[in-house]
Amino acid sequence: MKAEIIAVGSELLTPDRIDTNSLFLTEELNKLGIEVLRKTIVGDNRELLAEAFRDALNRVPVVIASGGLGPTEDDLTRETVAELLGRKLHRNDEVVRAIEARFRSFKRDMPAVNLRQAMVPEGAEVLANPRGTAPGLWLEDSGRMIALLPGPPRELKPLFLEQVFPRLQRRVSGVRMFHRELRVTGLGESHVEERVRPIYTRYSDVNTTILAAPGEVQIHLRAWSDNAAQADTTLDEMVRSFELALGDRIFAHSAVSLEEVIAEILTTNRATIAAAESCTGGLLAERLTRIPGSSSYFLGGAVCYSNELKTAWADVPSELIQAKGAVSSEVAIALAQGIRRRVGSTLGVGITGIAGPSGGSQEKPVGTVHIALASSEGVKERVVHLPGDREMIRLFATQVALDMVRMHFLFNAKPRASL
Amino acid sequence: MKAEIIAVGSELLTPDRIDTNSLFLTEELNKLGIEVLRKTIVGDNRELLAEAFRDALNRVPVVIASGGLGPTEDDLTRETVAELLGRKLHRNDEVVRAIEARFRSFKRDMPAVNLRQAMVPEGAEVLANPRGTAPGLWLEDSGRMIALLPGPPRELKPLFLEQVFPRLQRRVSGVRMFHRELRVTGLGESHVEERVRPIYTRYSDVNTTILAAPGEVQIHLRAWSDNAAQADTTLDEMVRSFELALGDRIFAHSAVSLEEVIAEILTTNRATIAAAESCTGGLLAERLTRIPGSSSYFLGGAVCYSNELKTAWADVPSELIQAKGAVSSEVAIALAQGIRRRVGSTLGVGITGIAGPSGGSQEKPVGTVHIALASSEGVKERVVHLPGDREMIRLFATQVALDMVRMHFLFNAKPRASL
Repeated sequence: MKAEIIAVGSELLTPDRIDTNSLFLTEELNKLGIEVLRKTIVGDNRELLAEAFRDALNRVPVVIASGGLGPTEDDLTRETVAELLGRKLHRNDEVVRAIEARFRSFKRDMPAVNLRQAMVPEGAEVLANPRGTAPGLWLEDSGRMIALLPGPPRELKPLFLEQVFPRLQRRVSGVRMFHRELRVTGLGESHVEERVRPIYTRYSDVNTTILAAPGEVQIHLRAWSDNAAQADTTLDEMVRSFELALGDRIFAHSAVSLEEVIAEILTTNRATIAAAESCTGGLLAERLTRIPGSSSYFLGGAVCYSNELKTAWADVPSELIQAKGAVSSEVAIALAQGIRRRVGSTLGVGITGIAGPSGGSQEKPVGTVHIALASSEGVKERVVHLPGDREMIRLFATQVALDMVRMHFLFNAKPRASL
Repeated sequence: MKAEIIAVGSELLTPDRIDTNSLFLTEELNKLGIEVLRKTIVGDNRELLAEAFRDALNRVPVVIASGGLGPTEDDLTRETVAELLGRKLHRNDEVVRAIEARFRSFKRDMPAVNLRQAMVPEGAEVLANPRGTAPGLWLEDSGRMIALLPGPPRELKPLFLEQVFPRLQRRVSGVRMFHRELRVTGLGESHVEERVRPIYTRYSDVNTTILAAPGEVQIHLRAWSDNAAQADTTLDEMVRSFELALGDRIFAHSAVSLEEVIAEILTTNRATIAAAESCTGGLLAERLTRIPGSSSYFLGGAVCYSNELKTAWADVPSELIQAKGAVSSEVAIALAQGIRRRVGSTLGVGITGIAGPSGGSQEKPVGTVHIALASSEGVKERVVHLPGDREMIRLFATQVALDMVRMHFLFNAKPRASL
């Protein structure tokens, strides 16, 4: 089965915004064995929008559209599709109540313009959207299926998974996509490629994609098959070969972030962590606390930008800073040990470095970062020379710190009772 | 003048790759006063490719295509466009020599497949590409202009600037795009829309786009005109009306983030800041330190997730936490005042709340956040009820905190000598 994706919004035809929803939609459609034939990006213009939908519906049985469901007069998707299919729009009281309730929950009145979002074409199913005001819409017409989804990714993604995916699933044939993902850190894209190329070239029926993402490399293996057992066997065999080639550089076998992996490791090991950060400015604490429930392992963090605060909050002796410089192995170690002792956590992390763009020197160029991990077994320290701009250097530095935590448990964790 | 962009390549219809060339192309076309009417992403399929080009050429006089000029049988752009326009393809010896020279430069023989890249439609101009093997092509047909460009951004961008831009420039009239941007925080998209609709509906020749971004709303005003003075007058008049309608909710008149605005305000006022964060977990410190040179105003931050650390690092009396709860106005105020005193900064920010997904109660539901700002003039405190998931709540909370800093200076700043 084939589908097309239409992204609606004049902002997507400016230099400011790009449609990224289609990547997610493509991945999910592929899982169902549905191939994406074309993507169209069209502005908030009734005629052009109508033409895009008309052409797509002439080519394929499934059209997924994002955007243009907002409350403003620019938002034309509902009206255009209704008119194209010859359906009248009616105000849906249930949707009105849902939008009113949403505004009430943050103590605001519903502006009158939002009533537009409660207009539903005849025969359409409303896809409730608890994360925003615009509900999605599902329409069927002469055997063709149309899903209209809100543009914001945080609304579109769950709405698609919860309400569109199951509707499509009921309609599709037996060929599905089978997928494995590996995530790697501490190795560049071309090094990963070098190590795994001899493996994946042996599997011509599996599509292997190696993607660089900030601080990590993602490997996707995709097989299309109507034989689940055979596809799973092939993919599992490939994954085992990849594991041999990449070893402990693989930090995950699914689409999870390194901080999610660390959260699980810390929870499993009943360990706690604290951080004293200089150049990363709170990014490590922020990443650790992104995870729901992080208060069970993250006790606290100190962002000690000034030398005085390094001393006041992590007991780094001011003479040490004087003697070795704020960016040094010794100060990173003192930060890690000091914060661990102060907070009383299992682990303490210390980070000090030069994120740039200024502050570098011949001896300590921009990108020099010292990272230390203190535990009851002592302290480990690494100095890294990171490429990129301020944002990348800060991100890479926290990635190295999290990876040091991961390696600590890989080698020091007590065997679990169940193994 | 209007244009369409066609991105060619089956890889752009997978979950792994997105077309980003079109952002660059749009920016450059806009500079010439050429508006992008539609973007189409289509796979390596002769029929679908022909349909995409045929439709685009029926709608607009300028079509810019990227990709599909490679040496393999998948690369069909050249052949498809030649056939569509009824032009024969001939091998161009100059192009053959250029490709051979390129291979020789890295000591390799030209594979025979690369001869495909030397095929040029009758009447086309070759756009030499010193950065790759595929030359671009420029075709004119019945007053329409077509540029076929290689897909890799590092080849496409210089080729466009050096060879396509000047060709288009000769054809376009004096019409250019004029642009203004306003950024708003503390008001939702629909509230902004309600306030400014009466204004922008009076300006039918200006395109107004209202975009919701996390924690802010962006307003773009775009006018297309050959009269710069008149366009500027109109846009400036609109901006003044928007300023009256939105007042101090406008935090910027250009594409800058709230933390960049705060960085400038703090620097201008020679003020310093420190933060004691609970539920935002370091995000406020991280945002403040994203900015190069932030060490001149950001002294330090404490991420006090545990009650003990609220006491140890920001002197919040443990009896106060006991009596009022960790999430309370009183504790937010104590955090702000405590961290300000401890660090010795001009301003102190305290944040405590419930980011969820768990930890909420009837009395203090998820999304309840108390934010306090302490200064020499005393302390201000706000309680907000934020919508969304953990990530959004944390982001919104830091947005409110930064906005409180902005408002503090809006009302308390000493008049500058120059005013």
